[in-house]
Amino acid sequence: MSDDRRPARPSNRRPGGPGGRPGQRHAPRGFRGGERFGPETVWLFGLHAVRDALLNPERDRRRLILTRNAAMRLGDEAILAGGIEPEIVDPRKFTAPIDPQSVHQGAALEAAPLDWGRIEDLCAPDPDAETRDIVVLMDRVTDPHNVGAVLRSSEVFGARAVIAPARHAAPETGALAKTASGALERQPYCRVKNLGTAMETLRDMGYAILGLDGEGEMTIAEALAEVPGGRARPVALALGAEGPGLRDKTRGLCDALVRIDSAADFASLNVSNAAAVALYATRNG
Amino acid sequence: MSDDRRPARPSNRRPGGPGGRPGQRHAPRGFRGGERFGPETVWLFGLHAVRDALLNPERDRRRLILTRNAAMRLGDEAILAGGIEPEIVDPRKFTAPIDPQSVHQGAALEAAPLDWGRIEDLCAPDPDAETRDIVVLMDRVTDPHNVGAVLRSSEVFGARAVIAPARHAAPETGALAKTASGALERQPYCRVKNLGTAMETLRDMGYAILGLDGEGEMTIAEALAEVPGGRARPVALALGAEGPGLRDKTRGLCDALVRIDSAADFASLNVSNAAAVALYATRNG
Repeated sequence: MSDDRRPARPSNRRPGGPGGRPGQRHAPRGFRGGERFGPETVWLFGLHAVRDALLNPERDRRRLILTRNAAMRLGDEAILAGGIEPEIVDPRKFTAPIDPQSVHQGAALEAAPLDWGRIEDLCAPDPDAETRDIVVLMDRVTDPHNVGAVLRSSEVFGARAVIAPARHAAPETGALAKTASGALERQPYCRVKNLGTAMETLRDMGYAILGLDGEGEMTIAEALAEVPGGRARPVALALGAEGPGLRDKTRGLCDALVRIDSAADFASLNVSNAAAVALYATRNG
Repeated sequence: MSDDRRPARPSNRRPGGPGGRPGQRHAPRGFRGGERFGPETVWLFGLHAVRDALLNPERDRRRLILTRNAAMRLGDEAILAGGIEPEIVDPRKFTAPIDPQSVHQGAALEAAPLDWGRIEDLCAPDPDAETRDIVVLMDRVTDPHNVGAVLRSSEVFGARAVIAPARHAAPETGALAKTASGALERQPYCRVKNLGTAMETLRDMGYAILGLDGEGEMTIAEALAEVPGGRARPVALALGAEGPGLRDKTRGLCDALVRIDSAADFASLNVSNAAAVALYATRNG
């Protein structure tokens, strides 16, 4: 259903079929540092996030660790769809390498991050779209709850993709998956080597880039009204982390810095709320 | 500065002066059950939330429990402003009755909830306001992170008050205070015996009541454009909890049910993002 707005996901087919490649289920031992952008895996946890990832045919799954109770609650359908044999463990010896504070509910899945393909394909403006093409850029937003909520809102407002740097971004862990409430499996979340390069690519593709900034020279509504090309013009929204905001380099690559008007000088929205408001304004503005 | 939009907070003066009433620092022993809406206290924790509450002259403070390290980090100014002697405890024996999982940073404060006075005074429409008067109603939203984020956004968009039932609402605890990022001390958060009665009161005061609902018959922008009285008409926004949404009774008391348009049928905003978008739309619509 939502596949209509995903023009290409070419490189996400698993060569080993639905069960993955049994002989190569883990990243090589001792893999650390050197090559940062290799085939690292993430651990998803919690029944909801694990179920979503088991049911998603695009997920390259590696290991599934479940308590007997979690296996029962997940159900045969999800486990069979996952195509890998679960390792059933004693709840007192839950062995998945996740934060002991995590609310894992006895379910953890090691998987490769989803590969959404190239920005040039994924974000290619759709001339037939009824609403404006929108992309969200996240500049070092590392809190997984915020990123999860941004993914969820991006799906609601039909953003083509959420783009973040490979480093200094929230990994696709359980906390993010939980806050995203299913959107992690459906909403393109692209981690790129260099956010600046991605911004240049989007600009070349016709995107106007608006940076959210409390000191912005105009409101987001004013900026959208003035964007050349009007409502047909694709827009990328850049958001920085709470506190530091956008980095100078990112700021310099924006076409305009825009603010969301506040009734109180000392108050600001949290980043996920700012993203939701900016997405709403851009979709409807 | 933000006091301009708070016409009356009559009953929040502490009779005993800045130090509170030393002889009456705790709720009476054995106080439980019977009278639900009496002078119960809340425990705030974490350095940021405790500092905000110590510096707020409107807070009736009862007990302050600190580790030596937390006392140093809070600083003399905040502790003196609080007007009560801190109980310095060993970090290994942190005695405040809060969830052991809480990130308290060695600081906990027992305080009375802020008394924001009567809705009739607090929400009285301001004929000189440049923007629409807005009130947020929360129907059994119990997650403290969501409520904290709603308080924060409500302050940003200048909502007169956030109103929730005394039961089935998030208490003003540390988790809420932390997410609210200071707004708990500044943004009126009124707990009422009966949300329906509060809605009737607001209606009598001239408020149009819009209930956020995924099945709403029109978008929030359409509803705002049609509200009799135009941009001068005060608006109350009712939000329900994630999952159940608005209760039937609350729904029945709304003037219109409104939706925020989604690009994906199966996706919805989380309640704090929905509140931020609705506040933005109402302030600017």
